[in-house]
Amino acid sequence: MDDQLERLNSLPLRDDLRGQHPYGAPQLDVPIQLNVNENTYGVPADVQEAIVEAVRAVAGGLNRYPDREFTELREALAEYLGHGLSAEQLWAANGSNEVLQQLLQAFGGPGRTVLSFPPTYSMYPLLASGTGTAYLRGERSADFSLSPESAAAQVREHAPNIVILCSPNNPTGTALGLDVVEAVYEAGEASQSIVIVDEAYAEFAQAGTSTALTLLPGRPRLVVTRTMSKAFALAGARLGYLAAAPEVIDALRLVRLPYHLSAVTQATALAALRHRDSLMAEVEAIKAQRDRIVRELTRLGLAPAASDSNFVFVTGFEDPQAVWRGLLEVGVLVRDVGIPGSLRVTAGTEAETTAFLTRLEELLAH
Amino acid sequence: MDDQLERLNSLPLRDDLRGQHPYGAPQLDVPIQLNVNENTYGVPADVQEAIVEAVRAVAGGLNRYPDREFTELREALAEYLGHGLSAEQLWAANGSNEVLQQLLQAFGGPGRTVLSFPPTYSMYPLLASGTGTAYLRGERSADFSLSPESAAAQVREHAPNIVILCSPNNPTGTALGLDVVEAVYEAGEASQSIVIVDEAYAEFAQAGTSTALTLLPGRPRLVVTRTMSKAFALAGARLGYLAAAPEVIDALRLVRLPYHLSAVTQATALAALRHRDSLMAEVEAIKAQRDRIVRELTRLGLAPAASDSNFVFVTGFEDPQAVWRGLLEVGVLVRDVGIPGSLRVTAGTEAETTAFLTRLEELLAH
Repeated sequence: MDDQLERLNSLPLRDDLRGQHPYGAPQLDVPIQLNVNENTYGVPADVQEAIVEAVRAVAGGLNRYPDREFTELREALAEYLGHGLSAEQLWAANGSNEVLQQLLQAFGGPGRTVLSFPPTYSMYPLLASGTGTAYLRGERSADFSLSPESAAAQVREHAPNIVILCSPNNPTGTALGLDVVEAVYEAGEASQSIVIVDEAYAEFAQAGTSTALTLLPGRPRLVVTRTMSKAFALAGARLGYLAAAPEVIDALRLVRLPYHLSAVTQATALAALRHRDSLMAEVEAIKAQRDRIVRELTRLGLAPAASDSNFVFVTGFEDPQAVWRGLLEVGVLVRDVGIPGSLRVTAGTEAETTAFLTRLEELLAH
Repeated sequence: MDDQLERLNSLPLRDDLRGQHPYGAPQLDVPIQLNVNENTYGVPADVQEAIVEAVRAVAGGLNRYPDREFTELREALAEYLGHGLSAEQLWAANGSNEVLQQLLQAFGGPGRTVLSFPPTYSMYPLLASGTGTAYLRGERSADFSLSPESAAAQVREHAPNIVILCSPNNPTGTALGLDVVEAVYEAGEASQSIVIVDEAYAEFAQAGTSTALTLLPGRPRLVVTRTMSKAFALAGARLGYLAAAPEVIDALRLVRLPYHLSAVTQATALAALRHRDSLMAEVEAIKAQRDRIVRELTRLGLAPAASDSNFVFVTGFEDPQAVWRGLLEVGVLVRDVGIPGSLRVTAGTEAETTAFLTRLEELLAH
């Protein structure tokens, strides 16, 4: 045990935190970072300028607490999402992690449960732990798919207070059909389960994929979460949000910290929403590189999963750690998500994607 | 029961949240807002410009996740606080409410307790509830003071996991002597209590008042929290922080959400820290108005508490609600904190303070 850990253990830390390590991917300073599913195209110049001007407009009033209800931002998010949503159905927080934490605080907590289906977003069990909610590990098929029948049966079996469906799923990249969401919602009727569909990567879906936003009417227990970290290229600005029935928003008002969303964050997000044309053009470019990666990995004899996101999950490696190291040698960082024989890679710019594919082909040739 | 509440109660809300109302002072749009202890002088022009330029410098990189460790900001906060502190002893979050929430998540939680001494900051019991920590209500003397002997005896009696001392206390405005902090820390030895001193208003203290930062060496269970909302005129930017032993910071890394502090927030706070001369000049102006309010209220036959903050707590009203309404009639909003015979007023600009005092004298003459 090193000195630092010994000192930490000398503090009256909560028992379930003892021996834990902080969450977070390694932050290595390499030229081509394809490990955390950021939008590597950068913030377009017109969006940067809009953000700077928006901050200028609020800077003089920063001595005042921000609008606790961030009404203007909720209106803009509702307008962006469409589907007939109104501002009273929108909510936002500092990243979708905080949105999910607030949902768990309102509907989970001690004596309650949340069910999800690993492999999935690795923050779910940590958010459960942080809010004292018991985490239930559901099961997927061997190919990581999840059928409506299987999902519904698991919901009936566990009767969880909350279900989280990640679609497109992270780290596997594939979207769920809406029939899965419908089946889970129906199966959760008896247990009055809150059903969260985490659509962080929804803007990258293949043509013809439907969003769970279309299912909101008449389903007061359904919640769809989104983020501006990916398609909006704003991971650094921390803006996650959700759409749900107005009474779900009322529930979140009971657990949110007052003034949790700064005036600067509200201004930044609003500026990006109002200048989204150039951002949406980047989304199309990323989808093209994503499809290119799937094609090329298939050609190389690997098994990439169908991707509706800005990343590709690929199995079929004999020694993924060696490949990970070999890529890093030339400055390309991808993600080892701990699933045997697999790696996950973010779709970058054309040049980044070329660097990744070229090096990968070299490594596989040895 | 109205429709909205009925719909909320139809959701599977956590039992302890049922019937609660969201926290927050009324947000009324009146010309002179002296109700939430903001810095009413506004953000100085040079600080505004520095913030805009700092955001411009990070805008191009917002597609990347922020520095999870906000190292540059922690270095600047350590340098600002002085007292030999280093960056590894500093931590920050979105407002001091989030800092306190993280402390309760790490050291409180189900089966654990937090002791504080009402009347004090009304968020403490709400933060306790939000983290499942039992809130223990300590006692003060009739004049709202707290002696070292009384505080220590209450800590020994309750053996709490956490103690929160608010100094200067909100809503009463008076700073605690360091002898109280020392006595509480020593009394908490047996129960290994974490002792938090909330110094949100420390910059407004009367000359000769010492900060609990001086007590940090050799006290690994002591935590001092601060905010940029008050002296730094940045309530809208949401930046709370703390100083403590490095192992306390390690504990918070286990409960913080990854990337909880946006790159824009980091840049904004850094800009204000680097251009603080004009802000500190405002602090002196606010202290002068605060002292003026105390003098004038005394002359009017009221009983203002000694204030080390940017507000004054005053008792001696026969009908404080009538005074509150009478002030509002001329566009002056103060705070009724629910303590019989009292009101709380923020020290504003000279003109705002004059408007408050003039109207108050009129109202008392009737």
